[in-house]
Amino acid sequence: MAKSASAANIVSSVSSTGRDEPLLHGGDLAAARRLFPDSPEPFIDLSTGINPNPYPLSRLPADVFARLPDADKLASLTAIAARAYGAPSGAYVVGAPGTQILLPLVAALVRPGRAAVLAPSYGEFARAAALAGHDITMVHDLAAIRAARLVFLANPNNPDGRLFSESDLLSLAGNLSAHDGLLVVDKAFMDAAPAGKSLAAEVPAGNIVVLRSFGKFFGLAGLRLGFALAVPEIAARLAAMLGPWAVSGPALAIGAKALADAAWIKKTRDRLVKSAEKLDDLLTDSGLDVVGGTNLFRLARTDAASELFYHLGRAGILVRRFPEQPQCLRFGLPANEKAWRRLQIALAAFKRSG
Amino acid sequence: MAKSASAANIVSSVSSTGRDEPLLHGGDLAAARRLFPDSPEPFIDLSTGINPNPYPLSRLPADVFARLPDADKLASLTAIAARAYGAPSGAYVVGAPGTQILLPLVAALVRPGRAAVLAPSYGEFARAAALAGHDITMVHDLAAIRAARLVFLANPNNPDGRLFSESDLLSLAGNLSAHDGLLVVDKAFMDAAPAGKSLAAEVPAGNIVVLRSFGKFFGLAGLRLGFALAVPEIAARLAAMLGPWAVSGPALAIGAKALADAAWIKKTRDRLVKSAEKLDDLLTDSGLDVVGGTNLFRLARTDAASELFYHLGRAGILVRRFPEQPQCLRFGLPANEKAWRRLQIALAAFKRSG
Repeated sequence: MAKSASAANIVSSVSSTGRDEPLLHGGDLAAARRLFPDSPEPFIDLSTGINPNPYPLSRLPADVFARLPDADKLASLTAIAARAYGAPSGAYVVGAPGTQILLPLVAALVRPGRAAVLAPSYGEFARAAALAGHDITMVHDLAAIRAARLVFLANPNNPDGRLFSESDLLSLAGNLSAHDGLLVVDKAFMDAAPAGKSLAAEVPAGNIVVLRSFGKFFGLAGLRLGFALAVPEIAARLAAMLGPWAVSGPALAIGAKALADAAWIKKTRDRLVKSAEKLDDLLTDSGLDVVGGTNLFRLARTDAASELFYHLGRAGILVRRFPEQPQCLRFGLPANEKAWRRLQIALAAFKRSG
Repeated sequence: MAKSASAANIVSSVSSTGRDEPLLHGGDLAAARRLFPDSPEPFIDLSTGINPNPYPLSRLPADVFARLPDADKLASLTAIAARAYGAPSGAYVVGAPGTQILLPLVAALVRPGRAAVLAPSYGEFARAAALAGHDITMVHDLAAIRAARLVFLANPNNPDGRLFSESDLLSLAGNLSAHDGLLVVDKAFMDAAPAGKSLAAEVPAGNIVVLRSFGKFFGLAGLRLGFALAVPEIAARLAAMLGPWAVSGPALAIGAKALADAAWIKKTRDRLVKSAEKLDDLLTDSGLDVVGGTNLFRLARTDAASELFYHLGRAGILVRRFPEQPQCLRFGLPANEKAWRRLQIALAAFKRSG
């Protein structure tokens, strides 16, 4: 955004970021059905890291859709989110229609410079940094980050599940601050971590922005709700960029209820741990190496990854592949016994055919 | 956004745009109840220009909330919006979670310079332009705009309802293009205009961005849905800034249905015309001068505007006032006969007391 672009040269400056070059994302069942037109229905989508058993929806009052989202309700939601995510108060929390829309805004908080993205990682980090005019360097290790103005990383990482310690991240932030650098930590998959880790205090230092996804853990990705946690001055800047009604009425209502539902959160975290272990067993029994993951997905490695992707697709099961890691496939959690059973049968048939 | 801001100086650079300085917006009933704690309930909100009789909601499938919004459904929505708003195709349309969030992104399409905002106008224009680093000049006439890099105006204008002709706007855009300037036309209240005008072809020239609000005419402001219309290159840039899932599942589903519902649109437009005329009569009979408006609101003038604001507030009726126009009040449309009757009684009592 910081790039100059007069009306006359907008045409040439946008071609590299236009929508003609879609990124590979999970969750696109329409594309999967085009690729596998003869697959049995219902198609099973294991291509995302979204909880397949959503927070139960109750009937929403009509006003939630009709009226402008209420400033008081947004303040109430950010206060609840602050408690859920361990921030000192709602002043440290910005509500947004998904964390996705926050990425370029966060990248534009610092002036264009060198941005380091910890790889392998979520493709949108580099895209957002490029939109804000940064030069991207992909790094594979915290120690490889030197004098960057902006660092994007996910903790735990996606797709490999690599977990960085709070002390390593604070130490990195300290180094970055010497060069006016900003550390952005996407904790989209932290909610699904075992209790101790996910409840860790997250008081952002002055140059840390933490992103939290509502939709993944609560299984409501279509609602579009996410948060940035940062010191109040940065939070206020991001809130100003988003404007007064960025979070929809339905997201305000559902988010406030779900984030305060400690019993559902506890039960779901326990269930996800069990499901992920069950997935480990199934993948391992099928001859795959489980090389990483979080409790919302597992990353498996096999020399036959491409063949397995197509085999599963023809069986009506979509998993996630990665062009830069052609031997890896990411498996989300099946939603119910029927889906587990179909996955088990398809994997067994593949094992026999190999 | 284009302003440089190292992590160390973010604190000082955001203080002028922080959320401690809220703009005066309509629709904040919680604030109204604090101001008028003893007013009869239900409080009647006439402070916005939102259709008080929303598009009817049918039950939404659970997947709409649970799954990531589908790329195919977004393409389908933008194609439908293109037809509804008269754009050549969906490639000219960007869907967003409200037009509000688009304002700073549109302002950042051109490099920081002089931005002209046509006054009186919507407060968020100047705020968005300032966020993108522009120097703001308020102008009262198209002819007063010289060599601006960015122009924000609403057509019809809010709150006075002033309507600019397509030819005047195209001529302004032509002048702006000589200096690489961009014209942004917010047509949030154009849907409510009589048929001829609202169906006018809106093929944006290369340096025009048109904003369309879904929530106002369809009475679903809480859903958060809006559009930018522009040449495909600019549309692609804005879409890239918003990222792949900016429009929520509920907004995709409801928006696609409502924008294609020609019968409801026609019926609603006719009904709004009649309601606005009825409001004219009521305000005039009550001794106010109707000095402008659209079919979603009327602007009334009286020397006793401040007294009337408080009188109505104590009667449980919230209208919109404007600090920069202290003799004006904006009246939205009452939702039902009961609300019309309460407004009539309150206005009659005020007239008697004066």
